[in-house]
Amino acid sequence: MMQTERLVRRSTCARTKVGRKGAAVRASAARGGGRPHQQQSSSSRAVSRKESGAARRMAAAPRAIAKEVMLSKAPERLCREGDTGMREKFEKTIRKAQDEICAAITAVDGKSFHEDTWTRPGGGGGISRVLSDGKVWEKAGVNVSVVYGSMPPEAYRAATGVDKKGSTDPNDRVPFFAAGISSVMHPRNPHAPTMHFNYRYFETDAWNGVPSQWWFGGGTDITPSYVDEEDMKHFHGMYKGVCDKHDPEYYAKFKKWCDEYFVIKHRGETRGLGGIFFDDLNDKDPDTIFEFSKECMNTVVPSYVPIVERHVNDDFNEEQKEWQQIRRGRYVEFNLVYDRGTTFGLKTGGRIESILMSLPMTARWEYDHEPEEGTEEAKLLQYTRNAATWV
Amino acid sequence: MMQTERLVRRSTCARTKVGRKGAAVRASAARGGGRPHQQQSSSSRAVSRKESGAARRMAAAPRAIAKEVMLSKAPERLCREGDTGMREKFEKTIRKAQDEICAAITAVDGKSFHEDTWTRPGGGGGISRVLSDGKVWEKAGVNVSVVYGSMPPEAYRAATGVDKKGSTDPNDRVPFFAAGISSVMHPRNPHAPTMHFNYRYFETDAWNGVPSQWWFGGGTDITPSYVDEEDMKHFHGMYKGVCDKHDPEYYAKFKKWCDEYFVIKHRGETRGLGGIFFDDLNDKDPDTIFEFSKECMNTVVPSYVPIVERHVNDDFNEEQKEWQQIRRGRYVEFNLVYDRGTTFGLKTGGRIESILMSLPMTARWEYDHEPEEGTEEAKLLQYTRNAATWV
Repeated sequence: MMQTERLVRRSTCARTKVGRKGAAVRASAARGGGRPHQQQSSSSRAVSRKESGAARRMAAAPRAIAKEVMLSKAPERLCREGDTGMREKFEKTIRKAQDEICAAITAVDGKSFHEDTWTRPGGGGGISRVLSDGKVWEKAGVNVSVVYGSMPPEAYRAATGVDKKGSTDPNDRVPFFAAGISSVMHPRNPHAPTMHFNYRYFETDAWNGVPSQWWFGGGTDITPSYVDEEDMKHFHGMYKGVCDKHDPEYYAKFKKWCDEYFVIKHRGETRGLGGIFFDDLNDKDPDTIFEFSKECMNTVVPSYVPIVERHVNDDFNEEQKEWQQIRRGRYVEFNLVYDRGTTFGLKTGGRIESILMSLPMTARWEYDHEPEEGTEEAKLLQYTRNAATWV
Repeated sequence: MMQTERLVRRSTCARTKVGRKGAAVRASAARGGGRPHQQQSSSSRAVSRKESGAARRMAAAPRAIAKEVMLSKAPERLCREGDTGMREKFEKTIRKAQDEICAAITAVDGKSFHEDTWTRPGGGGGISRVLSDGKVWEKAGVNVSVVYGSMPPEAYRAATGVDKKGSTDPNDRVPFFAAGISSVMHPRNPHAPTMHFNYRYFETDAWNGVPSQWWFGGGTDITPSYVDEEDMKHFHGMYKGVCDKHDPEYYAKFKKWCDEYFVIKHRGETRGLGGIFFDDLNDKDPDTIFEFSKECMNTVVPSYVPIVERHVNDDFNEEQKEWQQIRRGRYVEFNLVYDRGTTFGLKTGGRIESILMSLPMTARWEYDHEPEEGTEEAKLLQYTRNAATWV
């Protein structure tokens, strides 16, 4: 929309300039033979290509967490040495879940996950596992990470509701700990759905006279290109089962939250067909919520893998593959425009390849594509426009 | 980045709720046969699928401009009847440019553009032309549009620098007129570059004792997957020629502005290899700047089409096609995350299909893809990381 670009110009321009400030480039001496003159930062000449990229990213994006250092092998623990209790327990749980889920996926696909591991100077780190170009999955990734960071007091107050003793100093920061597992899996067959899950635990340090705060968040959701009601009943049923075991109100509440979170607002469509989503969970004792979170992680494989196995050999034609690709375009739209984890991660200098691991291997945008009424494609769209109650 | 999602939760949640407020859904009576219960808004049952979609989008996204009404044929003029002078002249110019550019592209491709036209109840409208699945271009679109809208006083002050008599009433709005042409063309052959251009004219009505303000904006930029120095010299040389004819400072200034605007900040890369970009141009008399803007539009075909023609029959292998697809993924990242026109358009209820016409037909995301040093792919990346001076 060219006509509106200008309205937001000034502020974005300012950001661009600030963003590039550190990378102040200057023209290098002209090279011979009429070749174009390429500008280089003086620092980038002296360092390796990888470091140069990191230096550029440091300059290009404000960094809320320290730059990662890649490791050749995953360390015993990502938590700091002194961290015990729920921090240690949650890390162990997400790493076990990562191992088990990756093993289950590999058992079906036949291909192994590639692993990348990093730490950060101030503590914490992550393990990204990605399976690309598999037999069953086009792309599947499972990340765990542990972050020691700090947030502005307003963010803390918004998150915790604690504001009586809040600082008014804008430079004040509240230290926090966060650990989580997140995953997206995109199968090849258009009749096999994409699945996403994410489970996380947060703690703030005691701050400004207020004791430490903690909460859990997470969810698992499914994104088929074609509606198979049995699949949806199985998936939602499994999560309803876990929820019901812990609290009779959980499923209805977290299902609704999921439907409301994964909305592509400019399309008036949900990204997929739901699941559960929760945040700020701290209304029971931590061990009870931990058990709920752990069971949610343990439900990923039995809720999802049988659905994929059921459809892995389904026949499909070129039109169906294209429809899947169009839906993957919608997945990209949601993740890049609305997903809070993604957009926040891109702005704060997280590890880009781990953040964008969630994007599908391939996606498609056809101008004004609208499936014909009465088709299976139109049926899927209908369900993204009006959330169903599956179980 | 699961670990940071929570920090921005509260405000986004609020937006989600507000955004969905108008679409308050309620469970319909359960359907027979154990089928899932689908929720529908009562209003969507009575209207057609297209209208229902519109109603949903109205509810889902705050709308700064009136909903479009599709027409079967482009009207004689999109400007209001009483609009003369630059408004009328600029509309004529962009519509002529749209005709000529589409004709030139069709002459090369062999395929015609599909046209969609709309008006808006309060005046204005647009014409989208899209060529999909052509012989030479995978997707090429050229849009013109005329918008009568209104902006908040701060936006007006930021845009015009006029603030002495500014209103402090947050509900006050400054009426504006905007007309523009915008285009993106994605060829099939990985050796033929993508090209984008956009030229626009803005006017505010006299407001709060301040007389009417006006300005021009625009630019043309090129995004190859492989660097061909002759191509880049041709493209930049053509635009340098137009700039130099009008002002000796234009090219250096607008070339730099382009390099700084099209930055994918989280990657530390530019989207492409530049061109020109300008905004707020009102430092000469309007007719002089109009002539510059018109010449820029007229330079689109001679600066770009010969490059595509030179490469349309270049041999390429699967790896080169994949690299093009990866660069298209970067194009999507820029447009959805940073492009002001796109992000603003998505939020304000513009015509989604016209806004997202700029996205490529297909794109690809490979985990942690980094071309080997010394390859043509690494060379392209180098140029996106350190802007070159081509002419």
